[in-house]
Amino acid sequence: MPRGVFEPMKLLRSIHHLCRLSKTTSNCTFTPLTINCNFAKHLCLPACSYSTKWGTKKNHRTVKLNIFLDSMADPQIEVILAPLRANVKEQGDLVRKLKADGAPDLDIKKAVAELKARKKILEDKELSLVPDAATFDRAKMEDLLKRRFFYDQSFAIYGGITGQFDFGPMGCAFKANLLQTWRQFFVLEEQMLEVDCSILTPETVLKASGHVDRFADLMTKDMKTGECFRLDHLIKAHLEKISADKKTSNETKADCSDIIIKLDGMNKAEMAAVMVKFNMKSPLTGNDLTEPIEFNLMFGTQIGPSGLIKGFLRPETAQGIFVNFKRLLEFNQGKLPFAAAQIGNAFRNEISPRSGLIRVREFTMAEIEHFCDPDDKKHPKFVDVAQTEMLLYSACNQMDGKAAERVKIGDAVEKGLVANETLGYFMARIQMFLIQSGVETTKLRFRQHMANEMAHYAQDCWDAECLTSYGWIECVGCADRSAYDLTQHTKATGVRLAAEKKLPEPKVIDVVEAIPNKGLLGKTFKKDAKIITDALNLLSESAVDDFDKQLQGKGSYDLVVDGKSFNLTKEMIEVKKYQKTIHVDEITPSVIEPSFGVGRIMYAIFEHNFKMRENDEQRTYLSLPSSVAPLKCSVLPLSSNVEFQPFIKKISAALTKVDVSHKVDDSSGSIGRRYARTDEIAIPYGITIDFDTLKEPHSVTLRERDSMNQVRIPLEEIAQVIHELSYNKTKWTIVEGKYPKFDQQENKAT
Amino acid sequence: MPRGVFEPMKLLRSIHHLCRLSKTTSNCTFTPLTINCNFAKHLCLPACSYSTKWGTKKNHRTVKLNIFLDSMADPQIEVILAPLRANVKEQGDLVRKLKADGAPDLDIKKAVAELKARKKILEDKELSLVPDAATFDRAKMEDLLKRRFFYDQSFAIYGGITGQFDFGPMGCAFKANLLQTWRQFFVLEEQMLEVDCSILTPETVLKASGHVDRFADLMTKDMKTGECFRLDHLIKAHLEKISADKKTSNETKADCSDIIIKLDGMNKAEMAAVMVKFNMKSPLTGNDLTEPIEFNLMFGTQIGPSGLIKGFLRPETAQGIFVNFKRLLEFNQGKLPFAAAQIGNAFRNEISPRSGLIRVREFTMAEIEHFCDPDDKKHPKFVDVAQTEMLLYSACNQMDGKAAERVKIGDAVEKGLVANETLGYFMARIQMFLIQSGVETTKLRFRQHMANEMAHYAQDCWDAECLTSYGWIECVGCADRSAYDLTQHTKATGVRLAAEKKLPEPKVIDVVEAIPNKGLLGKTFKKDAKIITDALNLLSESAVDDFDKQLQGKGSYDLVVDGKSFNLTKEMIEVKKYQKTIHVDEITPSVIEPSFGVGRIMYAIFEHNFKMRENDEQRTYLSLPSSVAPLKCSVLPLSSNVEFQPFIKKISAALTKVDVSHKVDDSSGSIGRRYARTDEIAIPYGITIDFDTLKEPHSVTLRERDSMNQVRIPLEEIAQVIHELSYNKTKWTIVEGKYPKFDQQENKAT
Repeated sequence: MPRGVFEPMKLLRSIHHLCRLSKTTSNCTFTPLTINCNFAKHLCLPACSYSTKWGTKKNHRTVKLNIFLDSMADPQIEVILAPLRANVKEQGDLVRKLKADGAPDLDIKKAVAELKARKKILEDKELSLVPDAATFDRAKMEDLLKRRFFYDQSFAIYGGITGQFDFGPMGCAFKANLLQTWRQFFVLEEQMLEVDCSILTPETVLKASGHVDRFADLMTKDMKTGECFRLDHLIKAHLEKISADKKTSNETKADCSDIIIKLDGMNKAEMAAVMVKFNMKSPLTGNDLTEPIEFNLMFGTQIGPSGLIKGFLRPETAQGIFVNFKRLLEFNQGKLPFAAAQIGNAFRNEISPRSGLIRVREFTMAEIEHFCDPDDKKHPKFVDVAQTEMLLYSACNQMDGKAAERVKIGDAVEKGLVANETLGYFMARIQMFLIQSGVETTKLRFRQHMANEMAHYAQDCWDAECLTSYGWIECVGCADRSAYDLTQHTKATGVRLAAEKKLPEPKVIDVVEAIPNKGLLGKTFKKDAKIITDALNLLSESAVDDFDKQLQGKGSYDLVVDGKSFNLTKEMIEVKKYQKTIHVDEITPSVIEPSFGVGRIMYAIFEHNFKMRENDEQRTYLSLPSSVAPLKCSVLPLSSNVEFQPFIKKISAALTKVDVSHKVDDSSGSIGRRYARTDEIAIPYGITIDFDTLKEPHSVTLRERDSMNQVRIPLEEIAQVIHELSYNKTKWTIVEGKYPKFDQQENKAT
Repeated sequence: MPRGVFEPMKLLRSIHHLCRLSKTTSNCTFTPLTINCNFAKHLCLPACSYSTKWGTKKNHRTVKLNIFLDSMADPQIEVILAPLRANVKEQGDLVRKLKADGAPDLDIKKAVAELKARKKILEDKELSLVPDAATFDRAKMEDLLKRRFFYDQSFAIYGGITGQFDFGPMGCAFKANLLQTWRQFFVLEEQMLEVDCSILTPETVLKASGHVDRFADLMTKDMKTGECFRLDHLIKAHLEKISADKKTSNETKADCSDIIIKLDGMNKAEMAAVMVKFNMKSPLTGNDLTEPIEFNLMFGTQIGPSGLIKGFLRPETAQGIFVNFKRLLEFNQGKLPFAAAQIGNAFRNEISPRSGLIRVREFTMAEIEHFCDPDDKKHPKFVDVAQTEMLLYSACNQMDGKAAERVKIGDAVEKGLVANETLGYFMARIQMFLIQSGVETTKLRFRQHMANEMAHYAQDCWDAECLTSYGWIECVGCADRSAYDLTQHTKATGVRLAAEKKLPEPKVIDVVEAIPNKGLLGKTFKKDAKIITDALNLLSESAVDDFDKQLQGKGSYDLVVDGKSFNLTKEMIEVKKYQKTIHVDEITPSVIEPSFGVGRIMYAIFEHNFKMRENDEQRTYLSLPSSVAPLKCSVLPLSSNVEFQPFIKKISAALTKVDVSHKVDDSSGSIGRRYARTDEIAIPYGITIDFDTLKEPHSVTLRERDSMNQVRIPLEEIAQVIHELSYNKTKWTIVEGKYPKFDQQENKAT
């Protein structure tokens, strides 16, 4: 396919020209039946896919062209967006200036909140100009997913709990296939160390990781009923209501919209002040509300019967990998780099879950922690992916109000836009995995975290975002977390989580070491002795030096651990100074973390593959790739004729033998209606047993879901053909070329 | 192989004879190197496997004979066991008599406790006579599993939590392969509806299922430290200590042993009395203890921020399936029978977890709920398994002190020993799955629950038990739970969980229906109106009839729901009586539930496959079947020669392409040492790249773990050969026959 810049009419002519040239169409008429532009043509999405059909009525072919458009191609739309872009850039520049000037933290925070608000206005406008978004019918898709039990609310017969979902047979099979693909794509291909760690986690672990102190949202409670509200949601709704009231003065309206913009950056005291200023009450009962409460999002419980060991359901799977670092390093024979991976459930007690699978209380994650030398983040397989084109939305472009750009990942790393090869390698692999699993290329971007969004320890972070009817949603995070987690757990436990790095040549170093007199320490400090020994272990050399000076001078030293002071005397500690030759350096590895939200990816794939048949809006279906489709094949006897029964059994057994999951539908509906039912649950291939099957040599028809084309295949070959189609060992076009076309008109669903 | 009764020496002669007859050995000397009797020869295990090697020194073969012995064959051992068997039978007969006479519940309970105690004595004696059990070294196996990180205690760097384990790379891969096999074996093969339901479960659901009220153990707490003890464990330990004391009178000793025997059947008050009688204190501190406390084994938490929705971590996965019954039935187009399945984690807050993976707080289950017509529990595929021989330990034999018996499942169902075909079908399938996954045939039995062990609603229940160094442990339960669960959830929610069964011919029935005046009910009873309507819905016809009489007579009726009484008047309820023709009956399906404890199965497989090399006790390995082995293949360059590098890369890529998980070990150890390392992690096949590999045509050697035999294979073919070996598409003996033997002496591990 040619690459270049096309105008719509030129594009049409090009397609026409291509088709004429094509051998397969040499003797049929070119009839461009439809040309669909499936997505945002000119906006933040500089890639575009056109599809067209041509051919004779009975033998038409579909062609899909992926065309990458220059995002500035449509001057009309750019005219609309220009002032919004300028607005963002103005604020972005202000943020940069404030930071450069070392302005007070609060001023920067407010400026950043305003920047985010302006970015949001720009993005909303961009999305509103997408023709496709308007045609997608979420209610229709959700009806299909619920009706065919892909997933539905948990415990519905008991009234249900928000934020919890059960996956039915089709959702569960799709999920299992997606996870199997993930395992194949990452764990097997990269020989990662997969682990399966406990969900219940003691408080001490999550204290060290920062989750106990910082993993919280602000909420407020109805003083009488105890009903809870997430505070930012409540304030926003309240102020929007005031703004909408005709009686409200312009001044107040301006005040409201100013607060709404700044809400994201507000702290507890500021929100409390807003509540008081506008005299906020419960929107449901009108009752008084409590002061803002910090609500930790982790589910707490007690481990063991004593009630003394407090624990939480893990809010992410990553910590299980970090606390096992030593064992994993040892398993890898002490060598860096290596990656560990984990698939498992995590839990967040959301104050107000919403948006279906996107914000839930219980969810499956697939996380990778790639441990590497902090001074060498090159990746040996980066060269294999360097040419991959990706839609990158850099922090800089976000600050400047510019659109995302399509860039080769090799160039992005070379320019320093993406921090290092390993991060870049994973970003490219994430993209490949998502597209292979059914995410639409044109609805996928990687957005870089802006400095203020990142955790303080992170060096760079890119989110793979999918465009859905809820806007762009984060589906995979890919962050360089530096040595943060291992350092935190080392501090908390006194167990050094580090690796050895071989030096190019041995070197002689001065060693200063504080050696405790364990007996005396134990006698003096009882059970605190261990805390002291651990703290001594973690002292830097200069600290030991300092320590020694005081010990020699004053004769004692006050060691402070966790706010508790211990008076150590000369008799308790001996400071040794000597030289030694070392062959290795001890380093705390850096961690690159790709973290996949499985439910969110599933949701994006559902939206990107929800389709309607042309001219029949009632006939909806899911065009999931066969590798992740819940079932690979249906087996449909044309009627309930008993002569068909032995063939059903035979085919079913043959399919099971070659690991092809399938569904026999011998119910009484018309064949068209049964096809429609299998299309709804995304079954890519359908075998029909008809009266010709009974004749020798026995044969069946095979139908492909998306094109609805059919061929006739000998009975003996059918299982193997479907096996190869299901596991990407052949393509439908090849099968279509090999076997005779079957032309019987498909009945309409009734 | 011949079947019959052999005496040991006759057996030897038979093997000799067989080998002479065998073509493959026609020109080699028969040298019976070892004959191992792997297990309990004559006891409750009437099957036995002997293995022997013969052949020339360089070309020896191993033969395994499975011989089913008559359990009464060894008169000497039976002499020892006879009085113990008689003891059991005596008590079994007493229990039967008490039941027949309608004796008081308490008397029966005590008799049953005594029966259990006598059974335990018999079983312990039987196991003590097993020669194999003495040679198995659990510490050695646990060392291997920990050292190579199959699994280990969670959060160990934080001191760890008992009853929680993390699976490392090898354990996790083994688990994933085991679950994939399970999915293939049950879900795909039987076309079950797999679901994936929420772990966090609201209290109401578990109230209905009976878990909130009954899922508890008795414990006692140290009054000062709060330390908890499981009460039965504490009493047993305390009384055993008293009995062991020389100063204790014979009378007291007898009293102690009497109580220990009856402990299992004691209730809260009885245990409290024992505590007082023996003045029990904390064994750790000597402090006073609390009264017995009922401790529910479920982990509690709050769902949502209000703290008002109490929830638990599910103690089993089954309830998620039951509450989704309606959706699943609908998915199955309303037809019975069908089975739903679920793999997932469950949680039990054990008071004192122990025995490694066997009693833990967090574990993976795989459960199947097969819903069927209560009047028709036939299974269409039962005929396929009817000839399967299984070791059944019936309730009757347990009462009579007899051994387990090897029976064909077809005969067991026909005789009524196993309640129905569906239950029998699943038992046979469970056995096939376990053996295919590595459980030793001779260490597997199915034990029937005795009447007093079963839940009151269960119709029949058989546990698949594996013999381990902890004794016989339950790994899979297989129960006919009748309609209990669906009935309970129907009662609790008012949602009828039932199916329709087509009648052979339509029938006319009398209908009596209570139709509520919803407006009036709502006005009168406010939010209780729904409770009343639900209760009315669930009334039987005779109850409605009764209801109507009172309404006509007194003019009102007191409806009692959950202990609350509602006075209903004529105006509120209209009772309609009419006739209608029905074509279907509404039935509540019966449930057959096979429930797999994944961690326990893994543990049994570890024990059954832990081996030592002959003459080298330090060289231990795991002989896991290749289908579940964590990795299928190792790739070992003979040395660090750089010329080997491109071959490593090429082979690794080829293996990945055909989905063969593998591990490259290019570390500097000797080849023998590296083989030993791969044997430890159960890798069944090892490719070695040696200097002959460099020559054209390129080739490598392939080694099989258990026999340590090697062959030489062309480089181009190696990946495909290992793929076929790994996925049971070919056998090692076939590969050995096809390629030239490679004879280089394997270096000993150093």
